[in-house]
Amino acid sequence: MAKADEKAITPQSEDFSAWYNELVLKAELADRGPVRGTMVIRPYGYRIWELIHDALDLRIKATGHENAYFPLFIPESHLKREAEHVEGFAPELAVVTHAGGHELEEPIVVRPTSETIIGEMFAKWISSYRDLPLLINQWANVVRWELRPRLFLRTTEFLWQEGHTAHADEADAQRETMVATEFYEQVAREFAALPVIVGDKTPSERFAGAVRTVTLETLVRDGRAIQSATSHYLGTNFSKAFEINYTSSDGEQALCHTTSWGMSTRMIGAVIMAQGDDKGLILPPRLAPYQIVIVPIGRDADLVPVVTETGRLADEIRGLGIRVKVDDRTTLSPGFKFNEWELRGVPLRIELGPRDLAAGVATLANRLTGEKTTVPLDEIGQQMSARLDEFQDALYQRALDFREAHTLTATSKEELADAVATGFALALHCGQKSCEDAIKEDLGATARCIPLDGEPEEGRCAYCDASSAYGKRILFARAY
Amino acid sequence: MAKADEKAITPQSEDFSAWYNELVLKAELADRGPVRGTMVIRPYGYRIWELIHDALDLRIKATGHENAYFPLFIPESHLKREAEHVEGFAPELAVVTHAGGHELEEPIVVRPTSETIIGEMFAKWISSYRDLPLLINQWANVVRWELRPRLFLRTTEFLWQEGHTAHADEADAQRETMVATEFYEQVAREFAALPVIVGDKTPSERFAGAVRTVTLETLVRDGRAIQSATSHYLGTNFSKAFEINYTSSDGEQALCHTTSWGMSTRMIGAVIMAQGDDKGLILPPRLAPYQIVIVPIGRDADLVPVVTETGRLADEIRGLGIRVKVDDRTTLSPGFKFNEWELRGVPLRIELGPRDLAAGVATLANRLTGEKTTVPLDEIGQQMSARLDEFQDALYQRALDFREAHTLTATSKEELADAVATGFALALHCGQKSCEDAIKEDLGATARCIPLDGEPEEGRCAYCDASSAYGKRILFARAY
Repeated sequence: MAKADEKAITPQSEDFSAWYNELVLKAELADRGPVRGTMVIRPYGYRIWELIHDALDLRIKATGHENAYFPLFIPESHLKREAEHVEGFAPELAVVTHAGGHELEEPIVVRPTSETIIGEMFAKWISSYRDLPLLINQWANVVRWELRPRLFLRTTEFLWQEGHTAHADEADAQRETMVATEFYEQVAREFAALPVIVGDKTPSERFAGAVRTVTLETLVRDGRAIQSATSHYLGTNFSKAFEINYTSSDGEQALCHTTSWGMSTRMIGAVIMAQGDDKGLILPPRLAPYQIVIVPIGRDADLVPVVTETGRLADEIRGLGIRVKVDDRTTLSPGFKFNEWELRGVPLRIELGPRDLAAGVATLANRLTGEKTTVPLDEIGQQMSARLDEFQDALYQRALDFREAHTLTATSKEELADAVATGFALALHCGQKSCEDAIKEDLGATARCIPLDGEPEEGRCAYCDASSAYGKRILFARAY
Repeated sequence: MAKADEKAITPQSEDFSAWYNELVLKAELADRGPVRGTMVIRPYGYRIWELIHDALDLRIKATGHENAYFPLFIPESHLKREAEHVEGFAPELAVVTHAGGHELEEPIVVRPTSETIIGEMFAKWISSYRDLPLLINQWANVVRWELRPRLFLRTTEFLWQEGHTAHADEADAQRETMVATEFYEQVAREFAALPVIVGDKTPSERFAGAVRTVTLETLVRDGRAIQSATSHYLGTNFSKAFEINYTSSDGEQALCHTTSWGMSTRMIGAVIMAQGDDKGLILPPRLAPYQIVIVPIGRDADLVPVVTETGRLADEIRGLGIRVKVDDRTTLSPGFKFNEWELRGVPLRIELGPRDLAAGVATLANRLTGEKTTVPLDEIGQQMSARLDEFQDALYQRALDFREAHTLTATSKEELADAVATGFALALHCGQKSCEDAIKEDLGATARCIPLDGEPEEGRCAYCDASSAYGKRILFARAY
């Protein structure tokens, strides 16, 4: 018989990192793989990824992109063609030197991202302006050797989608960068219930090889930031390196302007850290593998009619397109089950015992508020969709309230230090890399982004007092 | 302006292999990657894979399996734990020896299949009979170093799903092996329109480490066989190697019985080779990225009302849940477009010109029969679903007729040689590996399977005249 405390986890306030690691393992979201830094995504965690996939894939296709698949293996020489790109990724590469029983003539790199191999194919496929824009996406695994791995957030191998597009000019490519940013923001807000801050990366935080990187930053409950997706305008950097040219309508040869953009399984880590509490996970209904769990209560003969009714309820709710699970395990107590489904973050729980059944009611427990209410059995079905929508909205509002309560403006080094100790800091900055480095060294914080919707403002750098850059406040935080 | 003969391909009868390679490239199904044997799956080919994915994933989930994801990287020592398994895969492995800028202490293998890494996780997750059966599937890429690569059929990296399950006893595991076989057969027959032969592999053709391998064999149009999916009963081989134990209901320790089963992007190669003709691909409607293409015909002012009507038609057809494309490219002639969509295998084509429009009709062209019929514009929409179903059935019937015409029974070495020169041979066999090897050496043919539905029969081996084994005829063919 399972013990009730098997599922207990360290409180967030005591040790946030321990809370996270224990939760991921005990909620059966993921497990560690045998090779250091690798991750096994268990069915409960993978189902969340499938729901993110479906939401995102729909939007990627609706905006005219087509899915394709490019090889995992890239010749080492290939990756070196874009100088800044290889410099950024070289320390993280995994290299295949032997295959088919022999040493290879040229080492092969396991893709850390696919700009180079897709660039080579784009060069082959594009010849005329009629071939543009070329709008491609792939769902794939990538490998980046991680020194300090953490499940979902930083794993040696992770799953993601990577969009890659080629355009006739900068304006069209910049527009594309924002198309991707917009559907990422939709998925973050409407599915993950995350009120992300969207903005440009500072030059020192840009993707290796990008002219512009737009990021979505999530604040999580220990006051740190998680980069939750990025969209890059790559200018003609990769087009030059891979000769992605086209003939324009007036017969001129020109370089394409390219973009790339990605969201990964890291998003699951952001949801866990931003939405969880001391009891465990709180899943937004639109990403919950089970939106409702039904627990029949009772023993022996008393249990029989209860199980019949929970089965009927489940069928009714499932018929409404809601993901529902009946927990009919007979060897576990109701209390154990309640704890387990709270740990695993199921939004709503329906409890039904013999006395409830006799009274024609069930108890509805809300994972977010902890409230229990009594609902007539014949009204449960019709209430569930609205209750889940309310839950989704309330979770978003809670995350937004938290973010607002943990975002401070800072005009001095001290205020900056105080702000990043508990959350986001909005501060003017000089724009110098050396100053960003000093802030990182001194306060452990990095420039997360230059928010798109920031009000115009100029003055002195909060850290070094030099003249401010960017024309607005930028966002600093400690980050995962 | 594109030339019409750009899309011409070598006839099947002249050089089947050239026909296939040209078709895959010119139909834009796939391209070769820069690392030898790797493949780029282009959007048109990838969409076919997505449709196979959706059909299969639905059936995998409906039979109680859950998707998960296991790491790409396996420690080399791990793979060696099941002796027969490593012996089978050792020659095909790609090995990572360097990562993160350093040489690794232990080399890492890029998964050729995941029995070993999943076995290790199963051992950790399973403790009691209550944890069984454990029914897991993953969608993933795998790597097997190929000496003679061929797009889709034999690539260094390919995409697949691999199911892995653990059971309390042999009966349950054997039943599972057939559950997978049944949904593979459904997808092959109902989606790919392939009348596969289902049977057991002979011992020498079994998966490395399996007790039993069930295979689905497709006959393609040059008379060769393609193994299109397999389902393995692994006995306790992997349970012993990875200690996948459970405590039974009466408290005894016991080994699990495991299975694994997979279908891959190879299936696309089987569809191309089994269904194509000299004009190119013929896609079964249920796997066609576009089930119907509409080509507006006309110039200048004449074209305007035609384009309006084709747009309306497309909306109407799309509203019926049919995948439809309007080819409105203005720089290409109707003839070029007809050839291109025939090459790319779109089942039905609607042609509409100004005179058709005036007469209130359109021309409907059938890719399989080559027939063109005139259909009133106001009846097209309502006819399309039935026409596509008829097409799907006719394509299956054509493949079945072909298979029956190219399956011969053989009772002598000469008859066996004649039969495998043009298709399937059904022959009694002695069951000796040495005899199978001689047939391979002599006739280039292998034992494809012992068909499940074969009639009981005994006698002499067609090749060596020894007493027959298996109690029925077995299927031989040259194979890809």
